[in-house]
Amino acid sequence: MSTFVYGFEDALPEDASARELLGGKGAGLAEMTRLGVPVPPGFTITTDACLYFMEHDALPSGVDEAIANALAKVEQSLGKTLGGDNPLLVSVRSGARASMPGMMDTVLNLGLNDETVAALAMQSGDERFAYDAYRRFCQMFGDVVMDVPHARFEERLRAIKEEEGDPRMADSALSAEALKRLVARYQEVIAEVAGEAFPSDPRVQLDKAIRAVFASWNNRRAIDYRRMQHIPDSWGTACNVQAMVFGNMGDTSGSGVAFTRNPSTGQRELYGEFLPNAQGEDVVAGIRTPFPLVAEAALPGREDRTFERAQPEAFAKVVACCAQLETHFGDMQDVEFTVERGEAFILQTRTGKRTGKAAVRIAVDMVKEGARTKAQAIQMVDADALEQLLHSRFPSPDELEKRGVTPLASGLPASPGAATGIIVFDADEAEARSKDGEDVILVRRETSPEDIHGMRAARGVLTATGGMTSHAAVVARGLGKCCVAGCSALTVDYRKGEVGVRGGPTLKRGDVISLDGSLGKIYAGALDVIAAAKVPELDALMAWADETRRLRVRANADTPKQAREARAFGAEGIGLCRTEHMFFAEERLEAMRCVVLAEDDATRATWLAKIEPMQREDFVAIFEAMDGLPVTIRLLDWPLHEFLPKTDADFASVAAALGVAEESVRARAVGMHEINPMLGHRAVRVGLTTPAIYQAQVRAIISAAASCLRAGVSVHPEIMIPVVGMAEELAQATALVRETAASTDANVKYAVGTMLELPRACLTADALAQSAEFFSFGTNDLTQTTFGISRDDAGRFLPAYIDLGILARDPFSQIDEDGVGALVRIGVERGRATRPGMKIGVCGEHGGDPTSIAFCDRFGLDYVSCSPPRLPVARLAAAQSHLVRDSDRTRS
Amino acid sequence: MSTFVYGFEDALPEDASARELLGGKGAGLAEMTRLGVPVPPGFTITTDACLYFMEHDALPSGVDEAIANALAKVEQSLGKTLGGDNPLLVSVRSGARASMPGMMDTVLNLGLNDETVAALAMQSGDERFAYDAYRRFCQMFGDVVMDVPHARFEERLRAIKEEEGDPRMADSALSAEALKRLVARYQEVIAEVAGEAFPSDPRVQLDKAIRAVFASWNNRRAIDYRRMQHIPDSWGTACNVQAMVFGNMGDTSGSGVAFTRNPSTGQRELYGEFLPNAQGEDVVAGIRTPFPLVAEAALPGREDRTFERAQPEAFAKVVACCAQLETHFGDMQDVEFTVERGEAFILQTRTGKRTGKAAVRIAVDMVKEGARTKAQAIQMVDADALEQLLHSRFPSPDELEKRGVTPLASGLPASPGAATGIIVFDADEAEARSKDGEDVILVRRETSPEDIHGMRAARGVLTATGGMTSHAAVVARGLGKCCVAGCSALTVDYRKGEVGVRGGPTLKRGDVISLDGSLGKIYAGALDVIAAAKVPELDALMAWADETRRLRVRANADTPKQAREARAFGAEGIGLCRTEHMFFAEERLEAMRCVVLAEDDATRATWLAKIEPMQREDFVAIFEAMDGLPVTIRLLDWPLHEFLPKTDADFASVAAALGVAEESVRARAVGMHEINPMLGHRAVRVGLTTPAIYQAQVRAIISAAASCLRAGVSVHPEIMIPVVGMAEELAQATALVRETAASTDANVKYAVGTMLELPRACLTADALAQSAEFFSFGTNDLTQTTFGISRDDAGRFLPAYIDLGILARDPFSQIDEDGVGALVRIGVERGRATRPGMKIGVCGEHGGDPTSIAFCDRFGLDYVSCSPPRLPVARLAAAQSHLVRDSDRTRS
Repeated sequence: MSTFVYGFEDALPEDASARELLGGKGAGLAEMTRLGVPVPPGFTITTDACLYFMEHDALPSGVDEAIANALAKVEQSLGKTLGGDNPLLVSVRSGARASMPGMMDTVLNLGLNDETVAALAMQSGDERFAYDAYRRFCQMFGDVVMDVPHARFEERLRAIKEEEGDPRMADSALSAEALKRLVARYQEVIAEVAGEAFPSDPRVQLDKAIRAVFASWNNRRAIDYRRMQHIPDSWGTACNVQAMVFGNMGDTSGSGVAFTRNPSTGQRELYGEFLPNAQGEDVVAGIRTPFPLVAEAALPGREDRTFERAQPEAFAKVVACCAQLETHFGDMQDVEFTVERGEAFILQTRTGKRTGKAAVRIAVDMVKEGARTKAQAIQMVDADALEQLLHSRFPSPDELEKRGVTPLASGLPASPGAATGIIVFDADEAEARSKDGEDVILVRRETSPEDIHGMRAARGVLTATGGMTSHAAVVARGLGKCCVAGCSALTVDYRKGEVGVRGGPTLKRGDVISLDGSLGKIYAGALDVIAAAKVPELDALMAWADETRRLRVRANADTPKQAREARAFGAEGIGLCRTEHMFFAEERLEAMRCVVLAEDDATRATWLAKIEPMQREDFVAIFEAMDGLPVTIRLLDWPLHEFLPKTDADFASVAAALGVAEESVRARAVGMHEINPMLGHRAVRVGLTTPAIYQAQVRAIISAAASCLRAGVSVHPEIMIPVVGMAEELAQATALVRETAASTDANVKYAVGTMLELPRACLTADALAQSAEFFSFGTNDLTQTTFGISRDDAGRFLPAYIDLGILARDPFSQIDEDGVGALVRIGVERGRATRPGMKIGVCGEHGGDPTSIAFCDRFGLDYVSCSPPRLPVARLAAAQSHLVRDSDRTRS
Repeated sequence: MSTFVYGFEDALPEDASARELLGGKGAGLAEMTRLGVPVPPGFTITTDACLYFMEHDALPSGVDEAIANALAKVEQSLGKTLGGDNPLLVSVRSGARASMPGMMDTVLNLGLNDETVAALAMQSGDERFAYDAYRRFCQMFGDVVMDVPHARFEERLRAIKEEEGDPRMADSALSAEALKRLVARYQEVIAEVAGEAFPSDPRVQLDKAIRAVFASWNNRRAIDYRRMQHIPDSWGTACNVQAMVFGNMGDTSGSGVAFTRNPSTGQRELYGEFLPNAQGEDVVAGIRTPFPLVAEAALPGREDRTFERAQPEAFAKVVACCAQLETHFGDMQDVEFTVERGEAFILQTRTGKRTGKAAVRIAVDMVKEGARTKAQAIQMVDADALEQLLHSRFPSPDELEKRGVTPLASGLPASPGAATGIIVFDADEAEARSKDGEDVILVRRETSPEDIHGMRAARGVLTATGGMTSHAAVVARGLGKCCVAGCSALTVDYRKGEVGVRGGPTLKRGDVISLDGSLGKIYAGALDVIAAAKVPELDALMAWADETRRLRVRANADTPKQAREARAFGAEGIGLCRTEHMFFAEERLEAMRCVVLAEDDATRATWLAKIEPMQREDFVAIFEAMDGLPVTIRLLDWPLHEFLPKTDADFASVAAALGVAEESVRARAVGMHEINPMLGHRAVRVGLTTPAIYQAQVRAIISAAASCLRAGVSVHPEIMIPVVGMAEELAQATALVRETAASTDANVKYAVGTMLELPRACLTADALAQSAEFFSFGTNDLTQTTFGISRDDAGRFLPAYIDLGILARDPFSQIDEDGVGALVRIGVERGRATRPGMKIGVCGEHGGDPTSIAFCDRFGLDYVSCSPPRLPVARLAAAQSHLVRDSDRTRS
């Protein structure tokens, strides 16, 4: 027979996993008990027992007896008895392998009845406390075990308050006498609704509570949660029975929370709060203001109220436990404790949450202290948290909510950072008011190339339409401006100078708003902007990560400024240099419009010739910034209609420049409209049907590289063809690049490769690798086509899909392994089958996501490429992935 | 040593493939020679020799000697000698394994020099003929062998004509004397340009010509053609040397073409034309009018001019050869022959091209005659050709071009058929003028649901924008109207009542145009419409096909009328019933608009309730039409914005119906705009975010099925969820369907399945098959997402891609095996891994394409579904595929 009940102090069978058998909470309590930490005694009924119960609607035979034995041990150790004169009270709690907070049931204060409550009142010297505990127990037991609707208890509570003369009085104002009456009424309700009396026998209470906790594994809430979190139904929950301790038994009692290091700064100091004569939930509820743990942290003159001074013995015990737990678990701990009449008990310990800054400091400090290895330190820091160090930000949404600040509306987090400023609707006005020293937020339905000077002048950009790849988003990321895009709740009225918020206020030109570009939130008014942090320990951590990782890390950088920034953040090359902006600069745009609208090749060539020398200079500056490192340049990706004139004046001007009738220019422009531009005439499809554009780009690249070489700059250009789907398409595009490069007579070494960003490219990667010298997965577009989801339009259903549990996460943030990942794997395998050892990277935005980076590492990619501020994240995540794979290799 | 030269009469080594070694032409000549058909004698130099020549720039040793021996045999058999007094003239022609018409070089009349030309003149009694042949030979030899540019010969020809006093005279007007001078001039040019004299030694001529023919395998034209046709460079060409025969040696000579059966009707009769005293090319050139072969076919009183009467002996010989060749090759032959001084020679035989009607009749007749088996008959008919039997059509583009009729513009062949009528721009006008008995063509920028009554009244529909899946295209196919969509050369001006054609005329309301919806062509004026053919033999052929095939054939049918049509064409069920039109009917559209624009669920439900009973009636009628057969119903697939109001009146009316401000309705409508609707909020994404719509559809289906069951109709509904990409998405949608069906309390058996039309659906088909009871590949959308190509926008580059040889064919017409096919294979394998034997079909438009049908058969799909008129095509193609696979199985 299996053993289904384990005391916290009992050893498990050798082959058992504590977490699987006892659940997370049970395993933690057993671990602390084994360490000799003072944990209130108790026992765990295993997940196996739960699974048996689910199947048979009964506990396995012998379990009741085992519970009795385990209970007897608890009674013995405390000298108390369930239902006895010195009554033992227990909690009965669920605890599954994975945390499922609040999804299953709990019963506290079990063991109370009309006799034991009197004993408790006497022991505590507080009759009101005892009857309040009894009242809560009756309600919890009635609700959880006997299925009495919550509302039925509320009715009785309201009635008692009316009898007391004030239906609106607080629960805490009820007298002991009133609570006594309330208990009686609650027990009446239970009998009435459940058709069965409230059981006064504590052992019956316990048996029923255990079964109810097991049954709660299959309540609606828990099932839905498991579905969303991909937790198997087959795990089951354990059930923990533990002696209650009370922090509210007078002045020598209390409850608190201790962090073993400062979770904000990472400093090595005990940090936390303590509330005398209170239960743990009172500390969390925030009704009373707690005191600091240590005297040093108190306001001058208030040192006596600290835990350290008020209860020095209990304090010393907690300090010792904290040190022991941090050493044992090898990380900063968040410890909950209760002191009952001078005796300290540890109720829970877990790895403490911390800011990014604290995470870095703690990890590096612990290595210096000899407590952790470098590899362990690398794994201690949440890679994602590093980015918040590099951008200005607002207080977290939770912090803001505490202050009563909620967002006006949400949009797409198009470019990270935080900004506060006055609303303007026009790029010229943005520039003018910014020159006058005002902080402005440029608000547009969508932006166009004409707005760039306004975007540059603004602190942030907000658009009502457009997605993560819209003009506003791309340009804002390029400029390093905070941007929220595609905020569909907005209705922008330029004429009135107003922006309406659906279900909210109408804002006017000059009103102040705040944008959180990292989270895609918009707030009314000004918020505190927290500047990017300086963390001296970061360099050390990064150096260890760089020693550790296999995967190389490049940056997506389009300008010399970004290239320099990328180098400073540790980029080992540029993985994606987008060239669209080279056509968009103010002095080039009209020429590009003439290229797009030219009616013959000769005219097109004339206008391209005006742009080409400027682009050559752009490339020279980028190559210089990346001296010695590879630079992957993507040829034009956007459809030509992106460059069309917008205003009447623009049309007139282009028509004049081309020397044709404006009507004819307009007709051509209308004819270029596309129904699904994402799947339209763009990228290599333009490159092959209008070869002059790619030819001009290639000449600019190669001649820039030649001029750099002459100046002693080491250049490694990699020319990348976007949106390729067919082998012959790539063969012809590659031939076009090579023929054009050869025509420059420059002796430059360069590579030609392609983006894999269409399913067909991945499926036919063996054929593409005949022409391509390298591949780079464009996982943004690949996700769009694999899912058939336009990122620009997904806002209408993707959030709902995440709410419904259809998608666990946004596939544009984290690579979808089952679908997109399968294509990546196929692309890598087939590409390298043709061209062994072929260089392959990822340049979609997933290149900065730790989970996606681990995926890229696992599948043997050579590098990831991400935006410059994500580089530290990527470097750390690559190191973490390597360590995980290393330990997998060692294990197997 | 291999043998590199084979006389036409020589046997090949046993293991050799005649076609591979001798090329197509050489193999045919050898075959005819072996049959005893009178073929002018000659020999073939093998493809192996060509490959050796390519590599070594020289022929293998011994080949010159083998050529001499083969030539001697020819000389002997004819009693003529190359360069002798009774001079032998030969042709030297290329001939690869696959036909590459006109891509490589040919030299005719080889063997002429100043001596032999005199002999030829004497023998033919026509000095002009002899010198004309000599002149042609010099020019051809100079061009092909000695690389003299064509223009240099033209200069000399012009000069001679000037000397003769008329620079514009026809070549045929030049006297023998002038031609003599021209020959001398041509030889001067050759010496001058090539730096080498024209070789008068015929054996030298021959050696040089053979090498030039081999070298032409690698000319630019041939290489480009091979790349486009996917012909390997490694095949090489053979070279055929054959004695010349002349049909222009007087009245006992002539040339003709004979079909062994009538290629238009299929009737068993000799059919063809004959031109006395003429070479074969004169028959083809059409300068002189040829005479019929048989007396019966001649105009009364002209019987004497027929081949039968004019040259009865030669005629009898040709008749005998035709019979022999048809029997030998087992199919109707297209035979070229020449009579030289009473002696008939067969120059070429090939399987004759024929109309669809003739193809069916010939195949069925030959089975009745005992000449072919049923399986062979099935394989003799081009499945694609069957569709032309079922639609009205215009004469073929070739025929039209001969009459000088060329298209005004091209668009997408959105719905097949042919129509002629007057242009109208408005649906109401279309209806009114059609009622007055006029044939109208409705011309729109694009159509919308308001236009349906006009489309119904029109003979055909023409739109300037929109693709194969646009409103116009889908509705026109549904109505069986001919439609050309997305004709981007058109500029429609409703106000002026004009449509401009780019590079062409401006047409006005009331002008007559003709639309070819099968080919996507637009013509000015009226064209003859050829009605759909009645082919009595078709039933027999179809019955044999149905006995043979494994693959089942269903129809895409959305209405009871289409369902009945489908049954008549042999459908074994409906594979795709689109339900969009059930929301679009005039009396339902406003209600649907209210559903789309409702601000809350209760309002939405009210309006849906108005539509639901009408939809139930629709389903009842479809189930009745399909009594006993399965009907796969696709739930709503289109984005809701397709149903938005268009006109001011519509907006006002919807606002009034909903009782809200018009401004608010308009704002909601604007907010529904999508950037890439193909990848947007549609299909299951609407089904899950606005469940009331799918619920209403499911209730209508299930209650319709229940009412049919009560009436004794056998119903097999299969409910299909479109645009699924995620397992949990399908699980929730399936649950929604099942819960809704259960709520109707009807006891109806039905299946729930999904479309596989996104790459991710195929890649995760194992997970989808947990919920789906069947799959249907939607290969239209799957092709769009796999390639990243919007069918609506592809017109700007897809034709160029086909011209450039990047794509061998339009992937929307024929399934792309490498990409889309790979996903289909993955989908089938993974789906059946979860659910063995799962029913899987294809319902994209590829379901009617023979090559794609063969693919579906090979990959074990259960059925294809196509538009009703394609059903005979699909039934035949499925049988053909099965026979091919059968013979593959037998072979292996």
